[in-house]
Amino acid sequence: MLSDVFSGYDLNRLGGEMAIGHVRYSTTGESSLLNAQPLRVQIGGHPVALGHNGNLVNAAALRRKLETEGSIFQTSSDTEVIAHLTARAGKEGVGRRLRTALRQVRGSYGLVLLTPGALYAARDPHGLRPLCLGHIRGAWMVASETCALDAVGAKFEREVKPGELLYMGPGPMHTCSLGAESCRGTPCIFEHIYFARPDSKIGARNAHQIRKKMGQILAREHPIAADLVSGVPDSSLSAASGYAEEARLPYEMSLVRNRYVGRTFIQPEDELRRLAVRLKFNPLKEVVQGRRLILVDDSIVRGTTSRALIQLLREAGAEQIHLRITSPPYRHPCYYGINTSCRSQLVAAGRSVNEIETLLGADSLRYLSIEGTATAAGGAVDQFCTACFSGKYPVAVGETERPGHRR
Amino acid sequence: MLSDVFSGYDLNRLGGEMAIGHVRYSTTGESSLLNAQPLRVQIGGHPVALGHNGNLVNAAALRRKLETEGSIFQTSSDTEVIAHLTARAGKEGVGRRLRTALRQVRGSYGLVLLTPGALYAARDPHGLRPLCLGHIRGAWMVASETCALDAVGAKFEREVKPGELLYMGPGPMHTCSLGAESCRGTPCIFEHIYFARPDSKIGARNAHQIRKKMGQILAREHPIAADLVSGVPDSSLSAASGYAEEARLPYEMSLVRNRYVGRTFIQPEDELRRLAVRLKFNPLKEVVQGRRLILVDDSIVRGTTSRALIQLLREAGAEQIHLRITSPPYRHPCYYGINTSCRSQLVAAGRSVNEIETLLGADSLRYLSIEGTATAAGGAVDQFCTACFSGKYPVAVGETERPGHRR
Amino acid sequence: MLSDVFSGYDLNRLGGEMAIGHVRYSTTGESSLLNAQPLRVQIGGHPVALGHNGNLVNAAALRRKLETEGSIFQTSSDTEVIAHLTARAGKEGVGRRLRTALRQVRGSYGLVLLTPGALYAARDPHGLRPLCLGHIRGAWMVASETCALDAVGAKFEREVKPGELLYMGPGPMHTCSLGAESCRGTPCIFEHIYFARPDSKIGARNAHQIRKKMGQILAREHPIAADLVSGVPDSSLSAASGYAEEARLPYEMSLVRNRYVGRTFIQPEDELRRLAVRLKFNPLKEVVQGRRLILVDDSIVRGTTSRALIQLLREAGAEQIHLRITSPPYRHPCYYGINTSCRSQLVAAGRSVNEIETLLGADSLRYLSIEGTATAAGGAVDQFCTACFSGKYPVAVGETERPGHRR
Amino acid sequence: MLSDVFSGYDLNRLGGEMAIGHVRYSTTGESSLLNAQPLRVQIGGHPVALGHNGNLVNAAALRRKLETEGSIFQTSSDTEVIAHLTARAGKEGVGRRLRTALRQVRGSYGLVLLTPGALYAARDPHGLRPLCLGHIRGAWMVASETCALDAVGAKFEREVKPGELLYMGPGPMHTCSLGAESCRGTPCIFEHIYFARPDSKIGARNAHQIRKKMGQILAREHPIAADLVSGVPDSSLSAASGYAEEARLPYEMSLVRNRYVGRTFIQPEDELRRLAVRLKFNPLKEVVQGRRLILVDDSIVRGTTSRALIQLLREAGAEQIHLRITSPPYRHPCYYGINTSCRSQLVAAGRSVNEIETLLGADSLRYLSIEGTATAAGGAVDQFCTACFSGKYPVAVGETERPGHRR
Repeated sequence: MLSDVFSGYDLNRLGGEMAIGHVRYSTTGESSLLNAQPLRVQIGGHPVALGHNGNLVNAAALRRKLETEGSIFQTSSDTEVIAHLTARAGKEGVGRRLRTALRQVRGSYGLVLLTPGALYAARDPHGLRPLCLGHIRGAWMVASETCALDAVGAKFEREVKPGELLYMGPGPMHTCSLGAESCRGTPCIFEHIYFARPDSKIGARNAHQIRKKMGQILAREHPIAADLVSGVPDSSLSAASGYAEEARLPYEMSLVRNRYVGRTFIQPEDELRRLAVRLKFNPLKEVVQGRRLILVDDSIVRGTTSRALIQLLREAGAEQIHLRITSPPYRHPCYYGINTSCRSQLVAAGRSVNEIETLLGADSLRYLSIEGTATAAGGAVDQFCTACFSGKYPVAVGETERPGHRR
Repeated sequence: MLSDVFSGYDLNRLGGEMAIGHVRYSTTGESSLLNAQPLRVQIGGHPVALGHNGNLVNAAALRRKLETEGSIFQTSSDTEVIAHLTARAGKEGVGRRLRTALRQVRGSYGLVLLTPGALYAARDPHGLRPLCLGHIRGAWMVASETCALDAVGAKFEREVKPGELLYMGPGPMHTCSLGAESCRGTPCIFEHIYFARPDSKIGARNAHQIRKKMGQILAREHPIAADLVSGVPDSSLSAASGYAEEARLPYEMSLVRNRYVGRTFIQPEDELRRLAVRLKFNPLKEVVQGRRLILVDDSIVRGTTSRALIQLLREAGAEQIHLRITSPPYRHPCYYGINTSCRSQLVAAGRSVNEIETLLGADSLRYLSIEGTATAAGGAVDQFCTACFSGKYPVAVGETERPGHRR
Repeated sequence: MLSDVFSGYDLNRLGGEMAIGHVRYSTTGESSLLNAQPLRVQIGGHPVALGHNGNLVNAAALRRKLETEGSIFQTSSDTEVIAHLTARAGKEGVGRRLRTALRQVRGSYGLVLLTPGALYAARDPHGLRPLCLGHIRGAWMVASETCALDAVGAKFEREVKPGELLYMGPGPMHTCSLGAESCRGTPCIFEHIYFARPDSKIGARNAHQIRKKMGQILAREHPIAADLVSGVPDSSLSAASGYAEEARLPYEMSLVRNRYVGRTFIQPEDELRRLAVRLKFNPLKEVVQGRRLILVDDSIVRGTTSRALIQLLREAGAEQIHLRITSPPYRHPCYYGINTSCRSQLVAAGRSVNEIETLLGADSLRYLSIEGTATAAGGAVDQFCTACFSGKYPVAVGETERPGHRR
Repeated sequence: MLSDVFSGYDLNRLGGEMAIGHVRYSTTGESSLLNAQPLRVQIGGHPVALGHNGNLVNAAALRRKLETEGSIFQTSSDTEVIAHLTARAGKEGVGRRLRTALRQVRGSYGLVLLTPGALYAARDPHGLRPLCLGHIRGAWMVASETCALDAVGAKFEREVKPGELLYMGPGPMHTCSLGAESCRGTPCIFEHIYFARPDSKIGARNAHQIRKKMGQILAREHPIAADLVSGVPDSSLSAASGYAEEARLPYEMSLVRNRYVGRTFIQPEDELRRLAVRLKFNPLKEVVQGRRLILVDDSIVRGTTSRALIQLLREAGAEQIHLRITSPPYRHPCYYGINTSCRSQLVAAGRSVNEIETLLGADSLRYLSIEGTATAAGGAVDQFCTACFSGKYPVAVGETERPGHRR
């Protein structure tokens, strides 16, 4: 958390008229202090800082090439590849050099680059990662999500377009395109399902309402007789209330989330993950005892948490547990930033829904259709990146670029 | 947070068969490292550790007396008074000395004391602070709330009785009474209203359900025509859903809480508090726009947050905002542990409900009656400490012992 | 080192008109942060700070008694005993209470005690530890050694007398005696031999000159044919130059001391101590090769260093090594502050000089007589505490008070 | 100090068969943590570490060129230039690439470079900085000074030759030359005068004895009637004893150095420097009072210390103070590593000896001749770099490369 790193004193000492920040936990490279962002480098004798949300799929190949040509890397992060490409992109201004650099990378990015005189912002040509533009008291502001604009009182202007590069500095804002093709983009549908904060706006719609809609469609697609509907806190509460409304069933709190469980106590092993779930969620016995429960969740990745939750609720006395997921089965690894582990760790990979149902121990398990998901998100299926469900990757990923073990 | 202080490595190194811990932010004395609990002292050459939840009302007087007699205090915490009284209580065993010491203090406490050979636990004669007993794999466990038992898989046995002192060590558990009077206790009603985690059990009832009941009674006591009911997250969601159910109105999320706002950024000044509220809560414009809203909260202390929330919701487009509070007006300072500021900072002190309504800018403001509160909590009014509402303090507090400025 | 603990910034923030400091590494109790001095306590609600150079021989007994009466100790240091005795010494002013407290302790001390309004200084009745008084620009200053006065430009006034208690505060300085007996004191002779910095004045004489004198007397008592005289740096350079002058032999540097060997790398085991000596001292081969060498040292405690030095010099080619010590054999543990280990670790305990000579591998070993030592120090033998040589302890030490294993 | 940075625990965890270390305080670039050596970089995907003693005079120009070509620097240290040149030097092995890189740099260096498989060591073609080779139990060791070999028990083999590059790895040691010219080198004469530890060997001679010889020649060149000879501790004690021996005058300690004055307390301003001298040196009044004193020092840079010492000794009662310096007047800045400030800060720049004498307040001031200095160091004047005395720089330094304000 920022407040663990910066004191109010630190923040008050910051001067200047422009700033960038990033709370990225590294998606590529080790999660070490060295990889903390913004990345600060000297390019041509001038300080430059970069913040990068996303994941480059050809970073390893570009890095090998740059190292062969004599570049010295400081970090193991893919973001540094952009810095070196910019440093080597001729003798023009930073903006043109950044454009040259970005045309060589493939993958997902919402990017900000700060020089002593200007701020640049760019979004990848497929718009896989979100980036929005706002303004406050005559200043521009870009952020991944609109809730960041709200927090400081900035007004939302528009989304940065897929493949757009913005210049904000002395004089008016400039914009240019990173490529020739006019791309409307295929934004990641998981932003709608899970990533975005409920108070953020994605496209023209509010994330909470998108998820409530997903719950409603799910209730229509997969109804079942039950006594109450609950969501897995906090991410699935919106969807659960939508399901309950549509199904005309009571919406109830059946799991309490312990906000004070630090990551320290969570161990990576499978058995320990189950213990960790018990530490993190406490079922309300008085609520679930002897009841038929519909439990709504946004997705199932490894399945460990879902299985442990179902077991917890059974021990607490629930008579039936019907698991309802507001997205299709997650069967293919994401190479653009979600950082899912390799295919073998995805519980839905190579399994039918019936098999997963049995594995998790649910009385029934149903997933929202991909069409239902897209409809709730406000578009057609082909208007989104749905690679994790369909295996159709908008940006080709070479065999050698598929990390065997991510995260 | 514990995980900011202890690493998994630290915890793994801990050996032994008994342990105590405490996450108290000091309620008396400065909030300094020195006052961090458990307090560790040497009594008669032996190490003793104390954890104390609560607040002694005669600590200052006892401390002056002990210092006059030559005791040297290490901290400014009231807990150290108990340590010195125990050290001076004759030459018997620690248990008897602790009993002698506790008979001299007045106020509220859930207390644990660890020696190399035994664990003692005590609850104040009025039972103002909670303390419960559980067991896990042949071991005893005491905790302030039952959710701590659940988290580690311990079974709830019973509440520690008001005025009870427990010995847990080699041999069977002993119990004795701290005083002659047979006291049924007057536990703090605020545990039911706000303090306890929703998954904890207080008395025989679950906190979430108690609060849902409060919401239901409130809906009956103070109905109003509206489009939707929302709670202030996270503490008032249970109550809000109870109100919505009883009023047969849609229960909706109208405020999103930002979980990543650290305390660093929150400044003490009044104007800054309002900014802080904006950083902490984001209204869902799409939900509230043009709607008549019932906003349920558990209590109003200073009123700053409530006023800022109402303003935020109005700016987001809410047409009407009706504030409903699941407790009576908070008019008298608490000396037993809630650490409310002096009377002058309580917005309800010396003001009628109408005056508060105007001050906060709500379209209407209504409070739950004290009888309704007690009924939901499962008893009669006189079975609880309701001093903060009524000014009737179960433990007398001398004029000199009322700190002018707490917290 | 102070500069490792305090920054210039820290020091500049210090305000006020009075201050005390101490760089004591604890002589009693563990060498932990908690035992760092000055010790700060609250006595009767007022802050008091103590700095104590020396060692109380009845601290353990007093502590047991105080704990039985209900005092709670924070540290394992003997200095805290003085604090508790002061706290319990009636209701008079701190000065009188300190006097009452000091009349109960036995052992050695140079003591300073600071209250918000005054500074007290006291020296034990035997004057075992040094304490001197100076003044600078109208202010009083006390310090263990006069070189501290020089460092800040203060003028030396006089030594604090054995058994004297000084008050420095508003109004003129007061002085009173701690006891009835008129004691001229028996200061520790080791201050003259080793402890005092060469630029300090002890009694009326300069330490460098006292040690040069010791070297001269030693040359007269134990002459030997040799090519050159060297001292073990840095402590014995004065004595070695005195020996060389008297013996009319060249004074040469034959060992270079490595100033950058931190304590970290020095391990406690015997074998490792020898390696540590090699890291700490480097012989000048070109100087010692084929030469007959007189090596002057101030004392031999365990003998490990001496033995390792002799071996180093032999390996560097020295033909003969004659060890000359400017004090008598160190045979009895010191209980007043030198912190020598128990008797079994003193190489001279139970051994004749011949036996030690053989053990250390020197061609010859001679010690300065006790009369010669005292003469150089400027007095008769009975005017000093020479317990470590003679076993005659000026302050009785009970059997139970002799720690089996010090340091 | 190493022991402030590494614990014994840290050192014990180090595994492997090769290691390098460096305690360089940066001579070029800021003295920041980032510039701490060894410098660790990734070259072509492999980790490489560099330690560099010395100073490159064309680092700034090379850096500008490299940055123009797209290299990204991490530090402001000149050593990183060598890393980037090595990274860009074709596709051969690290050894050949390092050789190519070193042929592009100008200035002084003793360099070690560690790869996972080998250790390289190189000395600049003029041999300005020292580098020696030793062996211990079948392993090679290189160090700036021979005393480092002694400290761990390694045997001295020979000096690394000016312009020599050594390879130590699997198989026998290789050596090659960095240039075509057969250079005998002109090592820095200040190593003999001041830098080397007295127990190190430079060329074939011991530093202590070289300095003693300097003192002897100085006594012959500039005799004067006096009562005693003293050196400024610790660096000039060898020279002072040589002077005393030759002059047949008593060698005495007249200044005691306070070893515990940390850098924290030393302030940069001129007036404060004088106070700092008083804190660092204490004169022995009893020794100097009423005496005619010859004070030997190795060099005078700014003159602040010398002036303060003379004043201190006068206040302590010295009747006459004759300052004797074992090197010629220091008049020209050093660009190869001594890090003297710009010319304007050198007290001897643009001043005659008489003028300096007056400025410092000495009764007389005399310098050792350059021939005398070279003779004591064991060679002719042209066999050393004496640029700081003569202004004749062996490696040309461009106007733009002369930093106005070093250190």
